[in-house]
Amino acid sequence: MGYESIWLKRAALPEGATAPKTIAETIAQELTALQNLRDDMIWAYLVTDALPEEGYDIVVNDRKADILGGSAVGVLYGIYDAQRQLIVNGTVVSVSERPACPLRMLNHWDNADGSIERGYSGRSFFFDDGKLLIDDRTSFYARLCASVGINATVINNVNVRGDATWLITDRYLERVREMADRFAAYGIRLYLCVNYAASIEIGGLGTSDPLEPAVAEFWKAAVAKVYAKVPSLGGFLVKADSEGRPGPHTYGRTQADGANMLARALAPYGGTLIWRCFVYNCAQDWRDTTIDRACAAYDYFHPLDGMFEENVVLQVKNGPLDFQVDEPVSPLFCGMTKTNLMLEVQAAQEYTGQQKHVCFLVPMWKDVLRFRTYAYSEHDRVEDIISGTHRRGACGFAAVANTGNDENWTGSDFAAANWYGFGRLAWKPQLSAEEIAAEWAGLTFEDSTVRNVVTKVLLASYGIYQSYTAPLGIGWMCNPNHHYGPNVDGYEYDRWGTYHRASCKAIGVDRTTKGTGFSAQYSEPLAKLYENPETTPMKHLLFFHRLPYTYVLPNGKTLIQHIYDTHFEGVEELRSLVENVVAVQGMIPEKEYTRIMERFGMQLSSAKEWRDRINTYFCRMSGIGDAKRRKIYAVSEEDLVYPGE
Amino acid sequence: MGYESIWLKRAALPEGATAPKTIAETIAQELTALQNLRDDMIWAYLVTDALPEEGYDIVVNDRKADILGGSAVGVLYGIYDAQRQLIVNGTVVSVSERPACPLRMLNHWDNADGSIERGYSGRSFFFDDGKLLIDDRTSFYARLCASVGINATVINNVNVRGDATWLITDRYLERVREMADRFAAYGIRLYLCVNYAASIEIGGLGTSDPLEPAVAEFWKAAVAKVYAKVPSLGGFLVKADSEGRPGPHTYGRTQADGANMLARALAPYGGTLIWRCFVYNCAQDWRDTTIDRACAAYDYFHPLDGMFEENVVLQVKNGPLDFQVDEPVSPLFCGMTKTNLMLEVQAAQEYTGQQKHVCFLVPMWKDVLRFRTYAYSEHDRVEDIISGTHRRGACGFAAVANTGNDENWTGSDFAAANWYGFGRLAWKPQLSAEEIAAEWAGLTFEDSTVRNVVTKVLLASYGIYQSYTAPLGIGWMCNPNHHYGPNVDGYEYDRWGTYHRASCKAIGVDRTTKGTGFSAQYSEPLAKLYENPETTPMKHLLFFHRLPYTYVLPNGKTLIQHIYDTHFEGVEELRSLVENVVAVQGMIPEKEYTRIMERFGMQLSSAKEWRDRINTYFCRMSGIGDAKRRKIYAVSEEDLVYPGE
Repeated sequence: MGYESIWLKRAALPEGATAPKTIAETIAQELTALQNLRDDMIWAYLVTDALPEEGYDIVVNDRKADILGGSAVGVLYGIYDAQRQLIVNGTVVSVSERPACPLRMLNHWDNADGSIERGYSGRSFFFDDGKLLIDDRTSFYARLCASVGINATVINNVNVRGDATWLITDRYLERVREMADRFAAYGIRLYLCVNYAASIEIGGLGTSDPLEPAVAEFWKAAVAKVYAKVPSLGGFLVKADSEGRPGPHTYGRTQADGANMLARALAPYGGTLIWRCFVYNCAQDWRDTTIDRACAAYDYFHPLDGMFEENVVLQVKNGPLDFQVDEPVSPLFCGMTKTNLMLEVQAAQEYTGQQKHVCFLVPMWKDVLRFRTYAYSEHDRVEDIISGTHRRGACGFAAVANTGNDENWTGSDFAAANWYGFGRLAWKPQLSAEEIAAEWAGLTFEDSTVRNVVTKVLLASYGIYQSYTAPLGIGWMCNPNHHYGPNVDGYEYDRWGTYHRASCKAIGVDRTTKGTGFSAQYSEPLAKLYENPETTPMKHLLFFHRLPYTYVLPNGKTLIQHIYDTHFEGVEELRSLVENVVAVQGMIPEKEYTRIMERFGMQLSSAKEWRDRINTYFCRMSGIGDAKRRKIYAVSEEDLVYPGE
Repeated sequence: MGYESIWLKRAALPEGATAPKTIAETIAQELTALQNLRDDMIWAYLVTDALPEEGYDIVVNDRKADILGGSAVGVLYGIYDAQRQLIVNGTVVSVSERPACPLRMLNHWDNADGSIERGYSGRSFFFDDGKLLIDDRTSFYARLCASVGINATVINNVNVRGDATWLITDRYLERVREMADRFAAYGIRLYLCVNYAASIEIGGLGTSDPLEPAVAEFWKAAVAKVYAKVPSLGGFLVKADSEGRPGPHTYGRTQADGANMLARALAPYGGTLIWRCFVYNCAQDWRDTTIDRACAAYDYFHPLDGMFEENVVLQVKNGPLDFQVDEPVSPLFCGMTKTNLMLEVQAAQEYTGQQKHVCFLVPMWKDVLRFRTYAYSEHDRVEDIISGTHRRGACGFAAVANTGNDENWTGSDFAAANWYGFGRLAWKPQLSAEEIAAEWAGLTFEDSTVRNVVTKVLLASYGIYQSYTAPLGIGWMCNPNHHYGPNVDGYEYDRWGTYHRASCKAIGVDRTTKGTGFSAQYSEPLAKLYENPETTPMKHLLFFHRLPYTYVLPNGKTLIQHIYDTHFEGVEELRSLVENVVAVQGMIPEKEYTRIMERFGMQLSSAKEWRDRINTYFCRMSGIGDAKRRKIYAVSEEDLVYPGE
């Protein structure tokens, strides 16, 4: 299946270019592409150990530009910077760049059979029918990643089952090495997800107990074999004790016991063990209000701070639940000062419109990165923690990838901006959402009017999506399993620990110390702020508090009126966004335009469904009418009270 | 896979008996079984045209019993009657029996691949992997059916797709004939479901327009071929224009146009065309309160009364929706005096606990059969209409079968009583639920204490299931798609036309003339009774009316308190039912006992989930507490008002 060059479409590779085998070949190709963009300049490059390994300087003197890199990869990043400047601005200026996060990683949830868990852009381009796919697309994928500074990738799903369990064995290692070599030519290290129960499923042992010497021996031998074949492997990523996956808890051991056992096997080869913190009880009784899933990760991992090996990184989802449209930042970023942490966000739009809705996630990720944790001092933000500012060990930033074998890689053309934006933020969290949106629009579209419209669409999209979906940080209210479209009670009586507990009077879960106590997991003064609805950020109000529909928000509206207003307005704002794009129809290539309009059609219809179901549900539930008398499907007017009438 | 003899377990066939090829062989085998039950009597039989074809008399004189039948089948039914009497009562008395319904038919929803739509007892024993299965089980199935008077069966799903479309072609006809012959030896006629679009899919025509001569020609030729191979075939059953199935509406033709075209093709061979009335809009917008699915069948079919060929039978589901635990009787039984009608009930427990819950449906079916329709006169009941009392044409009673290849045929041991009971009612609707339950218990268990307990369990089960599920005839509130377990809003915002429209004040759809007008589809005085909540039967109250939670019921309770009470009581009654069975543990064979207890475990857990979800939903919604202060999961006590406090 063919593919498009998306944001590199104007950085054309030399005629007949084949997949590069070494980083030197890649540099040569990309220099040609640069020369093609601007052939009246002299481009030179130099590797110097005066710069940090991945850093680069571009020094422009009139018609000559020197690209200095701390290594060949640094040079490559510099070349991509120059390409970007030329495409977006038509000119190149001197810059000096160092990456913020040591690990800048994509997590692909691709299964060995070629399906993708939470994939909305076709099938896998890494796997098909139990086999690894390696072709031109593999290298082009690496080029797109490297062009935004991504230096690590995990090609298989964290839920490792069936064939994928065998990736670390002879059955696959030859091909894994080929894949790793393709990536290495772009400065990208391959990581693999492993099955925590591999000592049973592959090793034939009766156990995966991390303290059982035979289990440690199994992994030592397995890792030795892997590194003998694939010496450039970055390490392993593990989802254990989570949503039915096996793990150390099965044997009464801690998450540290499990992670450290694997980390020790990897250490001799410089390998890193990335361990996910997404551990919670997914068989909760909805009747039990004493359990709060939001508390789980901190409860499990905080007591283990300082007990992990140096080559362990804990990968923490941005929020305490699961990639909702808006969640408070995970308190693990406040309380784990003796452990390497990595932030995990989801570029795949599982809960944010599944690449049918435009939802540029960079503004939300920015909020997470800028969040003051008070972990080491009052100045620490999440972006400092994941940059390793306070620790020598590996830290980083990971995104669950939103790619597939669709021609445009991400199903929705606009969704590519999330992939792009993730890479840029991992390199330089200080970039603003506006800068990133404008860069991507500049790379992707030629006409300046279109670039402006697209930038506007991207920047407005997240707020609009927030408006017409679940209100004020309460999350969920989506259809079970596939998670597309509204269903207010979809998870309300289920086992997943995700409840809104709406009644005719109030809505929300009290997560303060008077409720589940989640707010106390934060450092002060955060804990205190979250304890009180008046000092809780409005966007997270219903995450922390149970409030009556008549509660008056800082904007002067009642909670219920705010729900109605945002839902009606969200759809109207979306309509006007679409009109902005329609207005530049002739300036966007027809194929892209048609694709974009098809998705907008789906988004509009879905947004109206969200608006009407949420408004109707809460109108029927509260018995309070919309002060502006817009259309809500409340059955009988007699059931309703209108405020102030 | 093996099978049990269930209610015929003590009517042992002669040693080494093979599948009978003719009805004479069957009579010989069954006479031996009778002799084995009581070898000190002389059994004789005689066919006489003094009796109607399927009727029989048993004349007992001391140690001699003569079984007189209007045909060989009549004799066979007489023998089964004698077997039943001997097993249940230990003795046989003179009887004179004539069947009520001319057609007494099972509908199997078995797919050609061996799966069963809405099957809860394993896989099909008619099909596997696109092939017909014919073996000892085929004949034993026929024996079980004939023993309760069933004289017709449809072996394939009404949703005819893929291979099943080809059952009427040479690919299958040889095997279809073998199957039909097996059944004929037990007096059972085989019918087939056909795909209305077969003229396109098989015939290669561009259309299925019933008024297009080429389509009629296709069917004429197809039917000629079928009858040449399978002369005993009863005819066809058709689901058209329903839930995505093709039909005459596609071509702007009426249901009569479609049915008559097929009926004319069947007429020369004495074949019957059975046409289902389950036609409605299954893509409704939940916002649209002007459409009422309950009205659909009557709206489509009533204007066509008198326009169907003589060999057409319309098959009408018992209620206007779809096999809910309790629905009013379909108004088609009131308004179709010039058309042959057949009643369709569902022995398969799709919405009544899926053969995990004990739910003896005979009491509900009895209510339907006893329902006064006022169709011809004030005396007509549904049982008169389907018995053909007012018409010469074929009329009848059909049940969607609850069987599969489980060893005990029906998954739940108790579910066999629904299969048994259906056959008995189709023969003799005047039998009471108590008589049928006692008969089945007597046939199935030996010990008289166990028989009494089982009879009690059966008779209580339907009322208990009603108590803890959706209240007062409102139906649904189950999980979408699979339909097991509670989900109050599961269908509330969906496209299926099945809404409860609960608000904080009231619940229900107004189906009176002030609402959707459904009540006016009934004859007087029914229409008038249903127009007023005070004269509407309580069990159908929320089917016809939208009422506030504070509405006072004839039992003196408010609607909301009635919901709480029935849900708490339902679970308690179930517990005590289970205890009754536990008390006779030693008297029930261990295998059956274990199987029964396993299902009771599932039922209890599911019943508690129903109770808690329904009570919690309505408590949160209404803000009214339980007057008896039992445990409801309403989040905060402050939200609640307690009546009278």
